Amino acid sequence: MKSFTPTARSKLKRLHKRGHYDKDTLYAILDSGFLCHVGYAIGGQPYVTPTCYWREGDSVYWHGSSASRMLRHLEKGVDCCLAVTHVDGLVLARSGFHHSIDYRSAMLFGKAHKVEDPAEKLAKMEAFVERMVPGRWKGLRPVNKQELKATTVLGMRIEEASAKIRAAGVIDDEEDYQLPIWAGLVPVSMHAGVAKDDGRLAPGTKRPKNVESFVHLGLAAKR
Amino acid sequence: MKSFTPTARSKLKRLHKRGHYDKDTLYAILDSGFLCHVGYAIGGQPYVTPTCYWREGDSVYWHGSSASRMLRHLEKGVDCCLAVTHVDGLVLARSGFHHSIDYRSAMLFGKAHKVEDPAEKLAKMEAFVERMVPGRWKGLRPVNKQELKATTVLGMRIEEASAKIRAAGVIDDEEDYQLPIWAGLVPVSMHAGVAKDDGRLAPGTKRPKNVESFVHLGLAAKR
Repeated sequence: MKSFTPTARSKLKRLHKRGHYDKDTLYAILDSGFLCHVGYAIGGQPYVTPTCYWREGDSVYWHGSSASRMLRHLEKGVDCCLAVTHVDGLVLARSGFHHSIDYRSAMLFGKAHKVEDPAEKLAKMEAFVERMVPGRWKGLRPVNKQELKATTVLGMRIEEASAKIRAAGVIDDEEDYQLPIWAGLVPVSMHAGVAKDDGRLAPGTKRPKNVESFVHLGLAAKR
Repeated sequence: MKSFTPTARSKLKRLHKRGHYDKDTLYAILDSGFLCHVGYAIGGQPYVTPTCYWREGDSVYWHGSSASRMLRHLEKGVDCCLAVTHVDGLVLARSGFHHSIDYRSAMLFGKAHKVEDPAEKLAKMEAFVERMVPGRWKGLRPVNKQELKATTVLGMRIEEASAKIRAAGVIDDEEDYQLPIWAGLVPVSMHAGVAKDDGRLAPGTKRPKNVESFVHLGLAAKR
């Protein structure tokens, strides 16, 4: 299956041309980020919690303290919505109405499950660190039993999903193009600065090369 | 009232020292951004929709097409949760367990209402454009009746809210500091690039100065 089949839940109601349901498009958006917003409802009250995520196949994963309200609620397997958004530009048009932003966003639906098996949980924690900094895991102080117990890892198989992309820049009404009003696009992106050594590094500890590029996280380098 | 009083809904359950309920802290987070994630539930199904917002006093506002599912649902005055998150850094510790991110986030609770009065609605649209680019509104082609009708503006008085801030960099277990493992902080920030003129500017139209700084939106300039 190369695409998700939209239902009333995930199908874009308007601006259909901005909507995408194919995995290539969706997963490219997911794989260009690391921060998501997880939505859930407890007794009708909606909550939105920001957290880090990563994707493996048709599932997304996130984790946190075993005491987290969000995780404790979602591990019951209730309905969940997970959103990822990248802002690419501010669109400054000739009229207030046509001001907009260029963006790429994904909205995922599914039910989360707790990763129970300790070995699988450890593998997921490794996958998360490797996703953030490829090659980092093997050099770290290993996770101990207490830490493994204190961490909840949730996975969610993506039941359905939609992506929404605007990459059009300025679109003004035809008759407005003649007006002497400046219009244009201000590109927006996330940047990673130069890594700062922790103040308490053991003598002789050198900064590894793999902390100098985060393009896989949608972070361009700024130096 | 300088602070919100947390209830079970907004009080941080864990890591209490990261929690803040005072307006100074909360509003500084809100005023350093323009993208939020709005959470709501329709028939128990949670949804999270990204959108632009702005704050005026103790209220936040957002807008969109009158046909939007999110807006049509929320204008009924149902419970809503609005989250704003700024990522400030990747925390690379000596153990996988202590990897983290530095961030500032705000979670707001309330019920939205539709701004019905056309004059008030127009004033809100102006406030939004002025928030994005101070001084821009007066030079734009004015909003017409059709556009005003096609736009829904929602406001939400903040009933309660919490902010969560991590700005600690690396915090490792005491016994891990002696290990020859590199640890440090990778700063992360949003950048605005150089504004690009729209390809169809009327002859002689110059780029105004006010599109060259977006620090009020939490966007540093990159040139």
